[in-house]
Amino acid sequence: MLEISEIFNAAAVLKDVARKTAVIPAPALATDCDLYLKTENLQLTGSFKLRGAYYKISQLSDEEKARGVIACSAGNHAQGVALGATHNGIKALICLPAGAPISKVEATKGYGADVCLVPGVYDDAYAKAIELQHEHGYTFVHPFDDDKVIAGQGTIGLEILEQLPDVEAVVVPIGGGGLISGVAFAIKTLRPDVKVYGVQAAGAPSMEKSVNEGKICHLDNVATIADGIAVKQPGENTYEICRQYVDKIVTVNDDETAAAILALMERQKVVAEGAGAVSVAAVMFDKLPIKGKKVVCIVSGGNIDVNTLNRVITRGLSKSGRNYTFIIDLFDKPGQLSGVLNVIADQGGNVISVTHERINATTEINGCSIRLELETRDRDHIDQIREALTAAGFHVLN
Amino acid sequence: MLEISEIFNAAAVLKDVARKTAVIPAPALATDCDLYLKTENLQLTGSFKLRGAYYKISQLSDEEKARGVIACSAGNHAQGVALGATHNGIKALICLPAGAPISKVEATKGYGADVCLVPGVYDDAYAKAIELQHEHGYTFVHPFDDDKVIAGQGTIGLEILEQLPDVEAVVVPIGGGGLISGVAFAIKTLRPDVKVYGVQAAGAPSMEKSVNEGKICHLDNVATIADGIAVKQPGENTYEICRQYVDKIVTVNDDETAAAILALMERQKVVAEGAGAVSVAAVMFDKLPIKGKKVVCIVSGGNIDVNTLNRVITRGLSKSGRNYTFIIDLFDKPGQLSGVLNVIADQGGNVISVTHERINATTEINGCSIRLELETRDRDHIDQIREALTAAGFHVLN
Repeated sequence: MLEISEIFNAAAVLKDVARKTAVIPAPALATDCDLYLKTENLQLTGSFKLRGAYYKISQLSDEEKARGVIACSAGNHAQGVALGATHNGIKALICLPAGAPISKVEATKGYGADVCLVPGVYDDAYAKAIELQHEHGYTFVHPFDDDKVIAGQGTIGLEILEQLPDVEAVVVPIGGGGLISGVAFAIKTLRPDVKVYGVQAAGAPSMEKSVNEGKICHLDNVATIADGIAVKQPGENTYEICRQYVDKIVTVNDDETAAAILALMERQKVVAEGAGAVSVAAVMFDKLPIKGKKVVCIVSGGNIDVNTLNRVITRGLSKSGRNYTFIIDLFDKPGQLSGVLNVIADQGGNVISVTHERINATTEINGCSIRLELETRDRDHIDQIREALTAAGFHVLN
Repeated sequence: MLEISEIFNAAAVLKDVARKTAVIPAPALATDCDLYLKTENLQLTGSFKLRGAYYKISQLSDEEKARGVIACSAGNHAQGVALGATHNGIKALICLPAGAPISKVEATKGYGADVCLVPGVYDDAYAKAIELQHEHGYTFVHPFDDDKVIAGQGTIGLEILEQLPDVEAVVVPIGGGGLISGVAFAIKTLRPDVKVYGVQAAGAPSMEKSVNEGKICHLDNVATIADGIAVKQPGENTYEICRQYVDKIVTVNDDETAAAILALMERQKVVAEGAGAVSVAAVMFDKLPIKGKKVVCIVSGGNIDVNTLNRVITRGLSKSGRNYTFIIDLFDKPGQLSGVLNVIADQGGNVISVTHERINATTEINGCSIRLELETRDRDHIDQIREALTAAGFHVLN
C-alpha cells in the first residue's frame, strides 16, 4: 500500500540525483487558462522515468542488489534503470527490442548497463527479460506497476505543489499509469482541492477504457506516435490508484499530439516526445474543464527520435501553410520551367525541390508536368503564388 | 559610463518581468569540462533581448516616454521593445524588414507594438527607423550600443554568479556586443577570477576583428545561419567594454553552429537559434581553453524559424548517417524496383521517397535509374544496405 511518507522518502533519496526541473509559464499555448509546464523533458536522461527507477533500485535489499537488476524497455525506463543501477553500484541488464533507435541503445550503454537486443518488438523483449530473470535470478524492475516506482514518480507532485502553490489543476500523460499514480496520490493526499487529469493517446486508451468499464482491460493493438505511452494494459496498482484519485481521463489523437510537439518547439523552445506532449495537446484542443484555472501540464519526456521529429515538423509546416507542393502542367517547350520559376521568385517563394517529368499518363502528349516544393510564409502566400501562376497562363493542378 | 550599481538596479526592475532562467547541466555535450547552459532561450519572448530593452524603456524620462519609442530589428529586439513598451504603458513602433518571418512579425504585434514593414533588408529598416525618429520625435531604442541596454543584459551575469557560484568560465555569443558587455562587466567587477569568452559567427566576425586590430572595423558583408548576430559593426560602448573585459573571442562556422543546434535538441531537449548556439558550438569544437573547468554557455535565444530548423535537422541527419539517398542504375524490366525495395526492407531501411526515371543521359539506352531517400540508423547501416544491394546484383552509383 502506497503511503505519502514513501513519496517524501523518495524525494530525500532523489535530492542529489534527479534535477528539480523548472516550472515554466506557457502563455502562448493557451489563452483560456493560466498554463505552466513542468519540464521533465529537461530531466537527466530526458524523462521522469529516472525518478521511479532510481528510487526502486535504492530500496532493494542487499541480497536483491547482489543479484543485479533486469528491465525491459523501448527507451526511457531503460536509461533510468541503467543510471540508477550504476549509481547504486550494481549490475543492470536491459532488454531492448532490436529495432530501438540506436541513440537510445547507446545512451543506455552509456549509463553503464549491459544491453540485450531482442529480435522483434517490445513484447518479445519483455518475454526475454522474464526468461533471463528466471534463469539467472535477477531482480526485475517493473516500468510502472510497483509502489516504489510510483513513489519515485510522485516526487513530481511534491515539486509542483512547492513550485506553484496556487496550482488548481495538473494534467498528466498516462501509459501504464506509474507517473499519474504517484502524482495523483501525492497531490490528492496533500491538496485534495487540486484537480488531477490524465491524458492518453487515442490509439492506446487502455487506462481510460479500464476506468470507464470498472475493470482492467487489455487492448490487442496500440498505435500512436506517442510510443512512450503505447501500453496495452494498465498495472493493477496503477489502475486502483487512478480509479480512486484521478478526476478525469481524456484522449488526444496523433495530429493533436504532433501540433503540441510543434507548438512546444516554436513557442516554448523545448523538445517533447509524443508521450510528453499529450498533456499539452489536451489543453490546446480544449479537452478539459480548466477555463480560467492555473494549470500545470507535465511534459514527461523529450526523447524523440530526430527522424520522427523531422516528420512532425514537416507535417506541421504543411498544415500551417509554410510548405507547399505545387503540381503544374506545362507545354514541353523551352522557357516554360524558367517562366514558372520567375513567377515563384517574384512572389517570394523559396524553392526546396523541383521534379520535372515529361512522360506522364495524365499530361498531354506534348506536355510535361512539374512538381515544385516550396517554403512559403502562410496559406495566403500560397494562394497568392497560385493566383500569380494562373494569371501568367500556367495550369496549376495542385 | 556603466557602473555595477546600474546592473543591480536593472535586476530589481526586471525582477517581476524577466524570468530567472534555469542553469541546466549539459554533461552530454562536453566530456572535457563540466558544462552548464544558461537557458535564455527559455526567457519570455524567447531571447535575452527583453532584459535590456525593458530596462532601457523603464528608465526613460516622462517626456521621452510621452514621445513613444521606435526600434529597428529583424527579430528578438523587436519583441523585447514591444513588450517593454506595452508594460510601461507607452507606444512603440518597430521597423522590420519586409522579409522577416511572419511568426516574428505576429509576435511583435502580439506584444502590442505597431509594426512598419520596410521593403529590403535590415539596413533599409534601420534607415527608415532613423527617418521616422527624426520626423516624429520618437525615442530610439538601440539594440546594443546603450549603457542602459547593456546593464539590462548584465543581469544575466548576476544570475549566473548566484546560480552557480563556483563557475570558472562563461561563454557568450557576440553580435553587436550588448550581451557580452553587460555579462563581462558584471562578472569581472564582482569576480575577476572568472573567465569571460566571446563567440562570433565566422561569417560575421566584426567584434573579433575590431578587438584584434585595436579599432572599430566595419564589415561590408556578413553571412551566417546565426542571423541574430550577423552584425556588420560593433558599438562604441560595446567595443570598449569587450576590449577591456573579455578574455578571448573565437569564431565558429555554420556547420559547427548547426551541429550545436542539433545536439541541443537531441541531448538537452531545448531549441536554440543559431545565434544562441554559437557558445555551445565553441565548446563542442574545442575552441576555448576550458579543459577541466566549470563552464556556463549562455544560450541566448530560441527564435529559430521552423523552416530553418527543418533544414538544420535534415543536414544533421545526413551528416550523422541517419538519412541517405541512394542512386541505383537498373535495367528497365518488370520487378527491378521491387527487387531493390525488398533488399531495403530486409535490411531495415525506411523509405522516405522514391524517384524512378527512365530517360537519363547517364543510363544505358534500355536502362533507368532510381533515387531512393531512406531513413537509416547510422553510417554502418548505410554501408550494410549498400553491400546487400551490390550482392543482389544492383549497380549502386551513390
